[in-house]
Amino acid sequence: MKSEHADLEARHPAEDLFSVRGRKPLVHCITNQVSMNFVANALLAVGALPVMASAVEEVEQITAEAQALLLNTGTISPEAAEAMRLAAGVCADAGIPIVIDPVGAGASNYRRSILFELMEHAPPAVIRANASEIIALSGRHTGGGVDSVHKPEDALFAAKNLAAVWKCPVVISGAVDYVVCEHQSISIANGSRLMSIVTGIGCAAGALIAAFAAVCPDRARAAASSMAVIGVAGELAAEKAEGPGSFQVSLLDALYMLDAGALDGSVRLQTLSGG
Amino acid sequence: MKSEHADLEARHPAEDLFSVRGRKPLVHCITNQVSMNFVANALLAVGALPVMASAVEEVEQITAEAQALLLNTGTISPEAAEAMRLAAGVCADAGIPIVIDPVGAGASNYRRSILFELMEHAPPAVIRANASEIIALSGRHTGGGVDSVHKPEDALFAAKNLAAVWKCPVVISGAVDYVVCEHQSISIANGSRLMSIVTGIGCAAGALIAAFAAVCPDRARAAASSMAVIGVAGELAAEKAEGPGSFQVSLLDALYMLDAGALDGSVRLQTLSGG
Amino acid sequence: MKSEHADLEARHPAEDLFSVRGRKPLVHCITNQVSMNFVANALLAVGALPVMASAVEEVEQITAEAQALLLNTGTISPEAAEAMRLAAGVCADAGIPIVIDPVGAGASNYRRSILFELMEHAPPAVIRANASEIIALSGRHTGGGVDSVHKPEDALFAAKNLAAVWKCPVVISGAVDYVVCEHQSISIANGSRLMSIVTGIGCAAGALIAAFAAVCPDRARAAASSMAVIGVAGELAAEKAEGPGSFQVSLLDALYMLDAGALDGSVRLQTLSGG
Repeated sequence: MKSEHADLEARHPAEDLFSVRGRKPLVHCITNQVSMNFVANALLAVGALPVMASAVEEVEQITAEAQALLLNTGTISPEAAEAMRLAAGVCADAGIPIVIDPVGAGASNYRRSILFELMEHAPPAVIRANASEIIALSGRHTGGGVDSVHKPEDALFAAKNLAAVWKCPVVISGAVDYVVCEHQSISIANGSRLMSIVTGIGCAAGALIAAFAAVCPDRARAAASSMAVIGVAGELAAEKAEGPGSFQVSLLDALYMLDAGALDGSVRLQTLSGG
Repeated sequence: MKSEHADLEARHPAEDLFSVRGRKPLVHCITNQVSMNFVANALLAVGALPVMASAVEEVEQITAEAQALLLNTGTISPEAAEAMRLAAGVCADAGIPIVIDPVGAGASNYRRSILFELMEHAPPAVIRANASEIIALSGRHTGGGVDSVHKPEDALFAAKNLAAVWKCPVVISGAVDYVVCEHQSISIANGSRLMSIVTGIGCAAGALIAAFAAVCPDRARAAASSMAVIGVAGELAAEKAEGPGSFQVSLLDALYMLDAGALDGSVRLQTLSGG
Repeated sequence: MKSEHADLEARHPAEDLFSVRGRKPLVHCITNQVSMNFVANALLAVGALPVMASAVEEVEQITAEAQALLLNTGTISPEAAEAMRLAAGVCADAGIPIVIDPVGAGASNYRRSILFELMEHAPPAVIRANASEIIALSGRHTGGGVDSVHKPEDALFAAKNLAAVWKCPVVISGAVDYVVCEHQSISIANGSRLMSIVTGIGCAAGALIAAFAAVCPDRARAAASSMAVIGVAGELAAEKAEGPGSFQVSLLDALYMLDAGALDGSVRLQTLSGG
């Protein structure tokens, strides 16, 4: 039973993208070393300003000047975890939105324990993950690596639980993306299969959510808009790509070139009533 | 005196590539920060699943679920060395193949001492390096940086010694690649000159060997197949490239698109009798 | 009041580039994790050999064999700072040129204190930064992230002070680049707007300055030549690029393909008298 969302319309992703381009939010990323170059370039491509810093000696000063914080556990260490805790504390005090990207939560008890500590220390604005990570965050070791062994639809129930516990929208990335809130959900049916064959696309999506949350106080909308933006950019990039290498390059080009015309006609947002 | 290898045929690289694509081995990489994005993308492009993790708090749990382990010393630190030691211990107990990529072994006594400790702690399945690193591993400080100042042919004797000492195939990367075993060797005359002008191609080759070793119990064959695969992909990429930037991109595309037709006709494998 | 520089001519960047290609200097980079892949590839593209190493256990041995050292504070940590101090000490003793790239100096007191300590410990050969970082290095917290909120022209006075205090040329990167010395300055009016929308272009410029300083004893000339080389490469890349993703790729291609013909006709160098 699906209906068009009363509040969220196909034109909103473009509006929010233009807000990001206009306001150029500074996004502090404490993120993984595998994809940090791509994450920084994705933020620049949508008009945001990335800053990566994770020394405990400076992290609070950096966060205090940012408009959003991304915490991604992809290559977590005790030092990075302590930096995340300090940065999250600044956000909790100053009202700066925190996006949690629990990369590899299914693969490691250590990551899960750090993630729970962080979220108890400072409430997240949005959680974004693949299906296996969402299921893992709801308490289960799912094993494997950082790629999902579940479909997004398998994680809807776990995501609703997380949304209720942590009082924030939970994004499940996958063939179809979902923004799951306690009382309703939004599906975003954009994207390309190639997105799962390039490392860091999910990390970049988490970073874009942070940039959009910096300029859009409705966090479910910020999350849905950014997933629509990266999804449509992914479709445009896939048209030009000959494989994952050229796809990664074209995705940055597409994020940079996206205009309202391309977005409005392509965005496929739906509200799922009952959640 | 050269002859076609009785056991290894030009069709084997394609067969092994299809095994990787079908079985999607999880490859745990404790690898250098310079090329980890490219390494992850190269693994995804051939159908394997990369996971990068090096916190001592979680590394054993991650390795235990992997089908192969890559240890690359390109940006080694005491913390990474300890993570490598723990991960290698899991592999020794569980029979998970370990690929050693001794990046910069010629440039640093510290790297050599870590490498020897690691290999004594847990036997490697394959060692892959450039000629200077092979010579350095056999005991000599060769100086310089991470690029080879020797030709692969200069390292054949050192490689044979290493193969005898560590009881594993030793791959020398270069204009021609060699898989050197104690009693015979294989040459792979594929590749492009551009491969030496992009950082991380050797690291990616090491990662592919790990992925192939995960699905192919004959480790000399796994090593030769992966060198042939990346070599032929390099030839295809060089045809489209206008320089090292576009070569790096096209190489990922080519790894992803490679089919048996392209591989079988292009692979140039030979066995060198007497080694 | 502008005049053609008596000493620096449009043909010098090509001459210096050919020296780099011919002598293949080894450039030790202790640099930030966000852009280290791109930095290594930019060095390879101009013919230099990058080596990244920052473990205190080995850093002095690595530096001792290098022809230049790049110190970039983009993702600084106490461990990296200690490695920088050791490496810089080797350079001071051996006369190896040090390029300081104070990424994020405006955003963090911690970075500024490390930078001052480093430069007091071992004199820099060249300082390269964006305008906000130059202003920050002259004592002022400018806030924000790692992108400049000032125009290069706003930083000329601060750069001249820095040049006088640290007795070295100071490069301000921006729409127009400046090489500021105590008694004269050079402007380089090459480049593309896209250079500010890709992360790591400034870091790569810092690395090229190190490579050029390794082969060219006149450090102001080395700095101006490398800014001209990357600027002209940026112009060529922008002609082919459809956005920041393809620009990043084409920039590496252009650095690799640059010849004297392309450079000599495009270089826009001027000496600012009194400046």
